[in-house]
Amino acid sequence: MITDAWEVTSVSNRIGERYSVLVFGQSHAPSIGCVIEGLPAGFKPDMDRVLSFMARRAPNGGALSTARKEADIPEILSGLNERGETCGAPLCMRIVNGDHRSKDYDALRDVPRPGHADYTAHVKYRGANDIRGGGQFSGRLTAPLCFAGALAMQLLAPMGIRVAARVRSIAGIEDAPMDMLRPDLDAISSDDLPVTDAERGRDMRAAIAEARAEGDSVGGVIECFATGVPAGLGEPMFGGVENKLAGALFGIPAVRGVEFGLGFAAAGLRGSRHNDGFAVSEDKGITALSNNHGGILGGITSGMPLVVRAAFKPTPSIGLPQRSVSLSRGTDETLSVAGRHDPCIVPRAVPVVEAVAAIVIYDLILTEGSGTSWS
Amino acid sequence: MITDAWEVTSVSNRIGERYSVLVFGQSHAPSIGCVIEGLPAGFKPDMDRVLSFMARRAPNGGALSTARKEADIPEILSGLNERGETCGAPLCMRIVNGDHRSKDYDALRDVPRPGHADYTAHVKYRGANDIRGGGQFSGRLTAPLCFAGALAMQLLAPMGIRVAARVRSIAGIEDAPMDMLRPDLDAISSDDLPVTDAERGRDMRAAIAEARAEGDSVGGVIECFATGVPAGLGEPMFGGVENKLAGALFGIPAVRGVEFGLGFAAAGLRGSRHNDGFAVSEDKGITALSNNHGGILGGITSGMPLVVRAAFKPTPSIGLPQRSVSLSRGTDETLSVAGRHDPCIVPRAVPVVEAVAAIVIYDLILTEGSGTSWS
Amino acid sequence: MITDAWEVTSVSNRIGERYSVLVFGQSHAPSIGCVIEGLPAGFKPDMDRVLSFMARRAPNGGALSTARKEADIPEILSGLNERGETCGAPLCMRIVNGDHRSKDYDALRDVPRPGHADYTAHVKYRGANDIRGGGQFSGRLTAPLCFAGALAMQLLAPMGIRVAARVRSIAGIEDAPMDMLRPDLDAISSDDLPVTDAERGRDMRAAIAEARAEGDSVGGVIECFATGVPAGLGEPMFGGVENKLAGALFGIPAVRGVEFGLGFAAAGLRGSRHNDGFAVSEDKGITALSNNHGGILGGITSGMPLVVRAAFKPTPSIGLPQRSVSLSRGTDETLSVAGRHDPCIVPRAVPVVEAVAAIVIYDLILTEGSGTSWS
Amino acid sequence: MITDAWEVTSVSNRIGERYSVLVFGQSHAPSIGCVIEGLPAGFKPDMDRVLSFMARRAPNGGALSTARKEADIPEILSGLNERGETCGAPLCMRIVNGDHRSKDYDALRDVPRPGHADYTAHVKYRGANDIRGGGQFSGRLTAPLCFAGALAMQLLAPMGIRVAARVRSIAGIEDAPMDMLRPDLDAISSDDLPVTDAERGRDMRAAIAEARAEGDSVGGVIECFATGVPAGLGEPMFGGVENKLAGALFGIPAVRGVEFGLGFAAAGLRGSRHNDGFAVSEDKGITALSNNHGGILGGITSGMPLVVRAAFKPTPSIGLPQRSVSLSRGTDETLSVAGRHDPCIVPRAVPVVEAVAAIVIYDLILTEGSGTSWS
Repeated sequence: MITDAWEVTSVSNRIGERYSVLVFGQSHAPSIGCVIEGLPAGFKPDMDRVLSFMARRAPNGGALSTARKEADIPEILSGLNERGETCGAPLCMRIVNGDHRSKDYDALRDVPRPGHADYTAHVKYRGANDIRGGGQFSGRLTAPLCFAGALAMQLLAPMGIRVAARVRSIAGIEDAPMDMLRPDLDAISSDDLPVTDAERGRDMRAAIAEARAEGDSVGGVIECFATGVPAGLGEPMFGGVENKLAGALFGIPAVRGVEFGLGFAAAGLRGSRHNDGFAVSEDKGITALSNNHGGILGGITSGMPLVVRAAFKPTPSIGLPQRSVSLSRGTDETLSVAGRHDPCIVPRAVPVVEAVAAIVIYDLILTEGSGTSWS
Repeated sequence: MITDAWEVTSVSNRIGERYSVLVFGQSHAPSIGCVIEGLPAGFKPDMDRVLSFMARRAPNGGALSTARKEADIPEILSGLNERGETCGAPLCMRIVNGDHRSKDYDALRDVPRPGHADYTAHVKYRGANDIRGGGQFSGRLTAPLCFAGALAMQLLAPMGIRVAARVRSIAGIEDAPMDMLRPDLDAISSDDLPVTDAERGRDMRAAIAEARAEGDSVGGVIECFATGVPAGLGEPMFGGVENKLAGALFGIPAVRGVEFGLGFAAAGLRGSRHNDGFAVSEDKGITALSNNHGGILGGITSGMPLVVRAAFKPTPSIGLPQRSVSLSRGTDETLSVAGRHDPCIVPRAVPVVEAVAAIVIYDLILTEGSGTSWS
Repeated sequence: MITDAWEVTSVSNRIGERYSVLVFGQSHAPSIGCVIEGLPAGFKPDMDRVLSFMARRAPNGGALSTARKEADIPEILSGLNERGETCGAPLCMRIVNGDHRSKDYDALRDVPRPGHADYTAHVKYRGANDIRGGGQFSGRLTAPLCFAGALAMQLLAPMGIRVAARVRSIAGIEDAPMDMLRPDLDAISSDDLPVTDAERGRDMRAAIAEARAEGDSVGGVIECFATGVPAGLGEPMFGGVENKLAGALFGIPAVRGVEFGLGFAAAGLRGSRHNDGFAVSEDKGITALSNNHGGILGGITSGMPLVVRAAFKPTPSIGLPQRSVSLSRGTDETLSVAGRHDPCIVPRAVPVVEAVAAIVIYDLILTEGSGTSWS
Repeated sequence: MITDAWEVTSVSNRIGERYSVLVFGQSHAPSIGCVIEGLPAGFKPDMDRVLSFMARRAPNGGALSTARKEADIPEILSGLNERGETCGAPLCMRIVNGDHRSKDYDALRDVPRPGHADYTAHVKYRGANDIRGGGQFSGRLTAPLCFAGALAMQLLAPMGIRVAARVRSIAGIEDAPMDMLRPDLDAISSDDLPVTDAERGRDMRAAIAEARAEGDSVGGVIECFATGVPAGLGEPMFGGVENKLAGALFGIPAVRGVEFGLGFAAAGLRGSRHNDGFAVSEDKGITALSNNHGGILGGITSGMPLVVRAAFKPTPSIGLPQRSVSLSRGTDETLSVAGRHDPCIVPRAVPVVEAVAAIVIYDLILTEGSGTSWS
């Protein structure tokens, strides 16, 4: 009864050691959600702030995103005591998925969309993968991540730790540079395209609109900062802050690259230009003179701001015709992906990157740190 | 609001679930080495091939590397039966470190070198970190990784899986492009600077020599391919091949960025240009028409070659004077790092990237796959 | 010398590496449930069999258990495709908890019940633990375990593996001995007190009734068998079948001891009596001549039936007055636990032990074995 | 190249999350040893105390143990800085194995010894297991555990935590009972048979001598106490102190059962007799009135002494003839195990149980606790 192919199983939807988030659901399953272990007991989440954070990710029907609107209302199934505080038990949150029109799933199942996981999931799960709306590979699964990240941010804030991201580029259009040593996080706009330079933002919007009009899509880069992170977090070799952040960020759909500090640009520099010197300052003690290292040396935080960037590929769902195959017939096919899709996933992914970064940082603190307090 | 200091402990030197490698040692400890769990019983390592692989990483006193020469002779302490085959028990390998001249460690301990982990390790371990030769942060710790990777490669080879890397760029000088769908791995030179275009290689050598002459250093990018990896490996969300490879590759000292397929370049493209169509071929069944996805879709292998790139910062040890501080006196200092250092770590890091990739791929196969055999 | 308090967090409700079950909920939370990772894709659970298995655990208002009746209807929130098959995504199941009468929780919170986790949870979670109905420590949390175990059993059955348990003793009354080498699992009664000797069963029922009448409770031992488990499963030292089964079984509330084969009785025997010889049999090849080792030697299965026993303490909730304290006032108090409680948890725990054993065995097979199939 | 049997690999020799010990070696490999991660930086081990602790486990040629004498001298290969303090890097320790006489291993390999792992290891590793001296299943592998435990004890001591075990019974002869609430650990004799009642100890010695004279062996029970453990350690469900201690203790060869507090005896009691009441005491605040719960309620420590017992089977190596088989010929055989063996492993296992308990407790403190300090 034992077969010799790969196991048709996965155990991969959980992240974190001491702040641990397990995401469940598929795009069209009855629910999506997550179970969070590691929330300190006695913490009363500010649900209004959670909802407004999650709203940044949800499609709003605007020019940047899909025409779909989703009201992602998290329902807490467990983990709170009678006073609404965390009680030490796992917190399970779910979002009920709306009813979806019945479709000819057999057709969808047969012709894999280029750039999507349709083909690889078909191989891995031997045809049993859920193809409805992208199944477990849908970007919709980032909603529970945002929930877990919003809680982590509320727990990080009293420690003086702030996580904020911006669109660094879309379609090759770069936002203005920011000082990595003293990033001005308040300069990031709070609209649906968070940048620091409004004009560049307008250019990005135009590029998105143009791609949409042509049935095409564009990608971009998100840059995330974390300030107030104390020095000494993270561990050598495989337990470094880079290892953990990268291992988590690649869990966001469409991420193809992750870099820290100057990242790939560092590869072209000389050491004398790249190294960050140290100096003694009156008020802060020892500080770095620049932050090309992005707040991490040897996997360990230096006390300077964390700087991480994630590259997002262009949305694979496009209206233009593409070459594909029929899995059942073994024939070449042409496919146009119908439906309402984001012409660029980057703006909505900004809070997702923040959420994942917050989850990782809070997990690092719980795993390596002393008993921490949120109050 | 953080109520105590961080734990002065680390548990971070181990990687892999079912092919698990724990690296131990410091640059000047009596030994460095590793313990490997998960080697299939009955496997007889080809030690000659292991040694020649490890020799690619060892400094050879040539123009590209440090003037030091190290003969890294692995000694196997456990894990083999009386016939020299793996027996199912953990295999412990150690390399005896040579005698090191006594030094004034107090001076080294006091002034952290820019770009190194001296400062962050000092904070984390409250001054007890081993500063001799970089301690546990030394690039020397990649020797045991190469040992473990060499064994993994010997186990992957009979499955038709081959892992090979090249220098993609040094100091901004790019090697010739390679077809990601059908990479010609045999075109990579087998000398101490593995490239495909000999002229670009000479330019890189010149850039390294120039930096060395000026007491400076340069960085670069390494590109690694794995061919023959079957489709269906890797898991959704946090268990994807990208997550695991990135989480491992950032364990190599000096890596600042990791990308797959087109990586950061994908962020500037349109979907119609980036998506890889599918087609039916006579002999291979379904294949992709291009490999911008680098062999991974949704975290799962597509059967196309894996393509991953890692950016290395310039060697932080440089002879030029740099600004630093005295940790004991709280004063500003100027530091010139004496001694023999690699002006560019990239050439010697090529086998390290291959080793880490092989470890991760073999671990994926053992973790997700059926019982595999090397014969 | 301990410099701060413990973290008020827990990350402990998950078990299994490749068949991984995360249990969530508290007795009076909106829901209890579990998320299962590792179900092979394409498996269609037989929900009728799941429900009938879960019914064995649920209180039925009979003589053996609490007067409460609970209809535990599992609702699947995710993990199935449009055909009702597992799709490779985590399967989330929840059971809606009934409405509970409002109570004066402050009183419950103030006086910890002897034998319960009230006091230790109060210390750990600094007073934020959920005390309603035992919170996360409630035996009610074993319902999701039974769900996950029922699925594991359906996946084990086609491999010829069967898991069955019986009440070995209650209140010191022992069921008839069973041959550990060739256990007759069909001889175990399928009523609400699974034993092989009906008369001993009647004696046990009488002992339970007597304890109930006196406002007291009794404990017992459950013995679990697994037949058809192939030789070679389990790993040396800390990955042994005993380690994993014991590590899981102690997760069932009220378990105070776990033993394998002859268990504690082995400590009183001589080696010549305890050792199980080997012989060659015509049809089965090499077999053991007896099974004092309970199917495990060196942590690895021998192919003989697994035999494991778990000791359950008497239900701590009793009507008789007990000494306790007021946490708020720091005074001695007398407490009588009102309400409807099981005078003996052992009969209802029989399927829970089976479920946990099935989860562990199926996880061992997925973790160590080749890709397995249920069909 | 993929086969369909179980994987012939193991990843099981490591225990602990934040104080993590990986044991390597086989009985006749060049070395045995361990790698410890999680030692706090700046700790200077007292090697004299380590050696005297390890000496309690080593065979001394006396009446209780094998006639072999082993001088287990730990050599530290990594993990210390130039001042002999832990530096945050993994500490690797090895013990060089003595030269062993060449033997006819083929004969040993062919006829599995009853009660040993010979047969199961043969199946698992397809005949490649190391059979020399028991290979990786040898009790000799407990020497590195004692090393790691000795360090843990030195780190626990300044926190006021003490771990001590005794022989509770051998061959059915029971040592005197001890008050579980206020155990007098100083009453345990410090000779090679640690008991509290010298006369019972003499009876045990006589039973061992008698078994030895008859070419047979005896088993026994070890009882371990840990005092000073603060309340609130351990986590619900699968992260409980019982789960972790049991999961570790079954890693000691020959352990067949583990129980806490009253253990299996609790199963025969009524709740009114078993429940431990609480009271307020002037000096200690809230305490339990008895300790049938063995210091653990709901998986969480109560502040009362931890009490755990492990049952050891009789040494399987006996001189008396036993039935076995020839694996190569498929014939029945008679086997007498020659050589020098412990007629009872229990006395030498006492420090091993202490070591494992100390490792688990220290790991719990690092994992769940705040930054702790040993000074």
